[in-house]
Amino acid sequence: MTPRTITSAPALVDAFGTLASEFAAVAVERDAEGTAPFAEVERLRATGALPALVPAELGGGGLGWRSVFEALRPVIRADAGLGHVFAYHYVNSWRVQLNEDRAAIEGLQRGLAANHWFWGGAGNPRDAGLELTPAAGGFTVSGRKFFATGAQVADRITASATRVDTGEKLAIVIDARQPEVVHHDDWANIGQRLSASGSVSFEAAFVPDSHVLGVGEQAGAAYRPYASLSILLFQVALDHLHVGLAEGALAAAASYVATSTRPWSTSAVDRAVDDPYIRELIGELTAQTRAADALTWRATDALVEAADRGWALTDAERGEVAVEIAAAKVVSTKTVLDVTSRLFELTGARATGESYGFDRFWRNARTITLHDPVAYKAQEVGDHALQGLFPTPSGYS
Amino acid sequence: MTPRTITSAPALVDAFGTLASEFAAVAVERDAEGTAPFAEVERLRATGALPALVPAELGGGGLGWRSVFEALRPVIRADAGLGHVFAYHYVNSWRVQLNEDRAAIEGLQRGLAANHWFWGGAGNPRDAGLELTPAAGGFTVSGRKFFATGAQVADRITASATRVDTGEKLAIVIDARQPEVVHHDDWANIGQRLSASGSVSFEAAFVPDSHVLGVGEQAGAAYRPYASLSILLFQVALDHLHVGLAEGALAAAASYVATSTRPWSTSAVDRAVDDPYIRELIGELTAQTRAADALTWRATDALVEAADRGWALTDAERGEVAVEIAAAKVVSTKTVLDVTSRLFELTGARATGESYGFDRFWRNARTITLHDPVAYKAQEVGDHALQGLFPTPSGYS
Amino acid sequence: MTPRTITSAPALVDAFGTLASEFAAVAVERDAEGTAPFAEVERLRATGALPALVPAELGGGGLGWRSVFEALRPVIRADAGLGHVFAYHYVNSWRVQLNEDRAAIEGLQRGLAANHWFWGGAGNPRDAGLELTPAAGGFTVSGRKFFATGAQVADRITASATRVDTGEKLAIVIDARQPEVVHHDDWANIGQRLSASGSVSFEAAFVPDSHVLGVGEQAGAAYRPYASLSILLFQVALDHLHVGLAEGALAAAASYVATSTRPWSTSAVDRAVDDPYIRELIGELTAQTRAADALTWRATDALVEAADRGWALTDAERGEVAVEIAAAKVVSTKTVLDVTSRLFELTGARATGESYGFDRFWRNARTITLHDPVAYKAQEVGDHALQGLFPTPSGYS
Amino acid sequence: MTPRTITSAPALVDAFGTLASEFAAVAVERDAEGTAPFAEVERLRATGALPALVPAELGGGGLGWRSVFEALRPVIRADAGLGHVFAYHYVNSWRVQLNEDRAAIEGLQRGLAANHWFWGGAGNPRDAGLELTPAAGGFTVSGRKFFATGAQVADRITASATRVDTGEKLAIVIDARQPEVVHHDDWANIGQRLSASGSVSFEAAFVPDSHVLGVGEQAGAAYRPYASLSILLFQVALDHLHVGLAEGALAAAASYVATSTRPWSTSAVDRAVDDPYIRELIGELTAQTRAADALTWRATDALVEAADRGWALTDAERGEVAVEIAAAKVVSTKTVLDVTSRLFELTGARATGESYGFDRFWRNARTITLHDPVAYKAQEVGDHALQGLFPTPSGYS
Repeated sequence: MTPRTITSAPALVDAFGTLASEFAAVAVERDAEGTAPFAEVERLRATGALPALVPAELGGGGLGWRSVFEALRPVIRADAGLGHVFAYHYVNSWRVQLNEDRAAIEGLQRGLAANHWFWGGAGNPRDAGLELTPAAGGFTVSGRKFFATGAQVADRITASATRVDTGEKLAIVIDARQPEVVHHDDWANIGQRLSASGSVSFEAAFVPDSHVLGVGEQAGAAYRPYASLSILLFQVALDHLHVGLAEGALAAAASYVATSTRPWSTSAVDRAVDDPYIRELIGELTAQTRAADALTWRATDALVEAADRGWALTDAERGEVAVEIAAAKVVSTKTVLDVTSRLFELTGARATGESYGFDRFWRNARTITLHDPVAYKAQEVGDHALQGLFPTPSGYS
Repeated sequence: MTPRTITSAPALVDAFGTLASEFAAVAVERDAEGTAPFAEVERLRATGALPALVPAELGGGGLGWRSVFEALRPVIRADAGLGHVFAYHYVNSWRVQLNEDRAAIEGLQRGLAANHWFWGGAGNPRDAGLELTPAAGGFTVSGRKFFATGAQVADRITASATRVDTGEKLAIVIDARQPEVVHHDDWANIGQRLSASGSVSFEAAFVPDSHVLGVGEQAGAAYRPYASLSILLFQVALDHLHVGLAEGALAAAASYVATSTRPWSTSAVDRAVDDPYIRELIGELTAQTRAADALTWRATDALVEAADRGWALTDAERGEVAVEIAAAKVVSTKTVLDVTSRLFELTGARATGESYGFDRFWRNARTITLHDPVAYKAQEVGDHALQGLFPTPSGYS
Repeated sequence: MTPRTITSAPALVDAFGTLASEFAAVAVERDAEGTAPFAEVERLRATGALPALVPAELGGGGLGWRSVFEALRPVIRADAGLGHVFAYHYVNSWRVQLNEDRAAIEGLQRGLAANHWFWGGAGNPRDAGLELTPAAGGFTVSGRKFFATGAQVADRITASATRVDTGEKLAIVIDARQPEVVHHDDWANIGQRLSASGSVSFEAAFVPDSHVLGVGEQAGAAYRPYASLSILLFQVALDHLHVGLAEGALAAAASYVATSTRPWSTSAVDRAVDDPYIRELIGELTAQTRAADALTWRATDALVEAADRGWALTDAERGEVAVEIAAAKVVSTKTVLDVTSRLFELTGARATGESYGFDRFWRNARTITLHDPVAYKAQEVGDHALQGLFPTPSGYS
Repeated sequence: MTPRTITSAPALVDAFGTLASEFAAVAVERDAEGTAPFAEVERLRATGALPALVPAELGGGGLGWRSVFEALRPVIRADAGLGHVFAYHYVNSWRVQLNEDRAAIEGLQRGLAANHWFWGGAGNPRDAGLELTPAAGGFTVSGRKFFATGAQVADRITASATRVDTGEKLAIVIDARQPEVVHHDDWANIGQRLSASGSVSFEAAFVPDSHVLGVGEQAGAAYRPYASLSILLFQVALDHLHVGLAEGALAAAASYVATSTRPWSTSAVDRAVDDPYIRELIGELTAQTRAADALTWRATDALVEAADRGWALTDAERGEVAVEIAAAKVVSTKTVLDVTSRLFELTGARATGESYGFDRFWRNARTITLHDPVAYKAQEVGDHALQGLFPTPSGYS
């Protein structure tokens, strides 16, 4: 049965909130299993939330990024791997519109609205590129990509590939369910275990003309500020993941301290919540998290405003947004690592029991924060502070 | 000649921007002198900015806090002592409306609009209270207050005092220019040297009935959420001071690095702006500062919204704002201390020359951040995170 | 076959070095299994290292603590869980001499020398105490202790228990292999997985008079500085564990960076070892680790000197050592947490693959550093700095 | 009257201890004056401590570096500017022996022993080099050096200069009192104000053959490990300055807290020394300082051992020492900056009064820690950790 598309922000928040509660209840077990989130994607699909960002006139929810990120936050808190793969669905499906072929874009958006496709990506810039060979009615695509978050559980995969005949780089969308798309199910990492971030191979998989979006987003000379917003969107999604992870860890710790931590023998208090060092430490970590959150939202708003400028967006406008997002990355990275490691100083020794699974917050944080090196994000912010420079657009900036 | 009151936000920004440039040019000298900013207050008065927050219907500028804090920022960057005393003018004059006697309040607001009074305060909660003795047509007030920022250069001083006959605590405004108000000119501290934060004595100074605002803001049993917003306003002003100081320090450092720092001998770069460690460090410090700024503005917006609720404001609503402001205090304190101390790692050894005055940023930061202990702000945020508690309203929360 | 006791420091270093290489080769697998280190204890026993600290005249190795801690370090680097359980063997067997009954002490030391007993402990101060009931030829002991590191794999367990008839608290040693000692095999924590730190129950287990050491070490009024050195010895062992863990993590990271990390795309270097941020970060972490190490050794030397004073040791002498050890705890805790979390910023994203097991360093660090709350160690150091106070002797100080 | 040379370590400690008490009593005033320490150098000379390091057989004190650094520590705590200039006396006079001309070396050592010369240096590697012109009985030297710590108050100045005729770089010693040596008295920096670190010009000043030490210490191809120990000695002296500064700041803060800080209103304690956050913070800062101290001493011992190797010292032996000293620099820099800035969080707001002079600790720390950029010291430690490399010998390494 086709789900009914969600068309209001409160409904979106409700739907994700319900899912988040479900996921939270089994987060420790699911983390231990670490298998791809097929069932969770089905649960999400059933809510009608997948086409939330598709314009209403194309049959979608007509909602905006602010609503989506607000709604996603509780899922990130519950399980950041799921938050990751869900957030990337929105990024990978939304980014198709940053291309030129309006007919293909709208066709795909309508397809998402009608079919509630779940979307992944296969774009790791550090791997070799995919190859595109002309075929009847389109192309075939070949190659392998690692860190292809969501591809394994997706219906559609956003990618770019280079024509073997012309050398042209094209943005494409691939039907992830055809047999020529091989999901290696090889994501076996210490964190973000439900994020389905393993590798995918394309073995002459078919890409119909209707799934070819035109000249790719960041094609060297063809770089244009609007098209390259996709990269900033990935980065801001990471900022939200960092902050949501920190919030989830703090909430888990607060609950444990209130219910389970014994007051320290020399603390002279009867309840752990009255221990001065616990009170101060969780206060500091919470304050840091709030600051990272405030900056992340400011960066999000700036990005949405930039996206609203469409093809009129200038380099400098894009650049200002890129710096703000990079700054949020620097701050949220440090914050989430501090919070998820130090939470144990709140809870005490017994909370290292495996059954609590409190280490998953740090494992998730440590994994997701390595998406690209934070020192280079700091460098970008620094170049702007020192010389007014903007980050050079790339697969990470 | 009476100045013409500024009534638009852009004009306010322009006026302060012009002043900031003037002050920046002599900031190092003025810091060395450290004398009370009589001249600077006159320069500010002449712009017509003093009544900016008085409602238009009472003859004022009709502007809001967001405009005021935006306009103040460049002055804070240039000289945080001046920023302090200017910000407190707005806080001390605006806070009169948090009382009950509408006639007295409006009379004072009209007085500010008509006379462009500069406003100070004498309310340090850690000193002994002031005493109020009934007299013909009002009261006389006696006592001494330390850390009375701005009183020395003010026309009016906001205070509270206790009636010797009834024990009632009343909010009052004192004419600062009468001979019975003794300004000790004893502010001799390592930072915030232009903030005129010395002590003031009241030797039976006269307070006419028109300057008595009624039951004071935080009078124990008489505590009401709206009245006690004054304290939060002081705190959010401190947050802005912290962030503005950090911004000023970063800008000064960036300029020096670009023009004066020599590349390190083993850095393999030709210009200091290309040194990887300088680029990264200023990036990290800038990112932190942006996060503190984003949280400070979010806290400011929350406070403005709370103030708009007037007497309908609830404990919980006030509490949420108080926690956000406290969080901003925790983050901005750490940030401004980091930035102002580490800026020298950007500039290098020669920048320790006295003539550059780069140490004033840290001296200012170190002084202003001690207004009240940041560990207890962290504790407040922690109590909320752990138990959902709100800060107990007090002279600092 | 009875092993031949090691009697020289170099031989001890060699023996542990060989074991460390063996353990390192399977550390990732063994961490995943997380089972009690029966085999590893046998390997250690076979080297003849177990009686290293027993005086030569009693048949032991006649070596000192400095030699033991030096020898242990490579094992800690390879697997801190094993390092933990091995270090505690020495602490638990050595501490018997801090009691009064010379005959019992020497009997047990001779027993260790002759039989190469492995030693555990059951002394968690936060659990209910054990009970001792008089029986023919000795006592029976009953009760349960958690966090009983090493008990499960031990031949002898050091403990203290209270006589049900007289209320006297006695130091005792328990034969861990009798059926009345139940090892629950319930250590299932996120780190220190090979440390056999689960719980042990004593169900009227027999304690012959020869295993009763007299009035316990810290028995309230009976407190004496020398006797209570056992607690400081545990604490300094923790300091060594922290530092060794940091060293192990740094070495693993350095090796990975040199062989596997790809230079970042915008780094303008050809090898990751030339990346400025990797060079600086590992340098900072290494410098911190060296400082923690230097302080740990200074604390160790101070403790050894204090132990050499025997019953002549004064409160103040003990106190100075306790402060130094606490300071080492504060520094080494922060260091090992920083190092083990940030090592991934050296290695990059691919090193989050489970097969590398690099997260085990942080999991071990996070677990062992919670032995007792570090904030209270800082408080102890602070009380000394502020008021010249020494830590109150207790189960943790 | 010629002082009597100190020849025992306890006497040296006593002499400096007495001076330190004197200097501490006027440290705030002297910092405010900031004039060159002529009087203080006379006080030091009078103790007979200046030739402490000269071998007894040459008429000196026959003491070692460990004694000197121990003795210096209280002066550093009292006034780090004086500590700086005193420490450099020993470095600059001792380093002459790292050259080849034994006769010249011994002559100068005897001169120091006989005349109790105070010694400065003029060797800033970042300035243009000095020029040496042959003259009857020696040379004349010309040029200007900045950051010439101690030169202004010295009798002898250690330097190196290049012969204009042969291009040979020679180590020389210059009589600082001749009229051709111009002391510009231009040290006007925010910290280390008594360190006499201004510039000195040599206007054809005479250098007799007896003051020419031969081929200079680090002359490119002529580099030899032993000769270049001078640089490491300067660096380890900086480590001691950092640690001593931190100790001085902590002691000052502890004393103020115990006598003057009022307990915070919501702290629920009667004395500031019982405030949990003050206790914890000073504990953390003290622990850091102890660790920096332990590493500094370990580095000192390593350096002394290396110096004892004389010309037999190898590159690798020197390299190991250089890495340890660099690590101490990284740690002590961070520590002293933390301690001197955060001490105000211990003392509270009133301690920002100028009369206390507590900011001088940070100003001193901020100045001295910029001697050379700490990021590059971290890089050196990192290169060793990653690749086993040793720092390239230079004017800073």
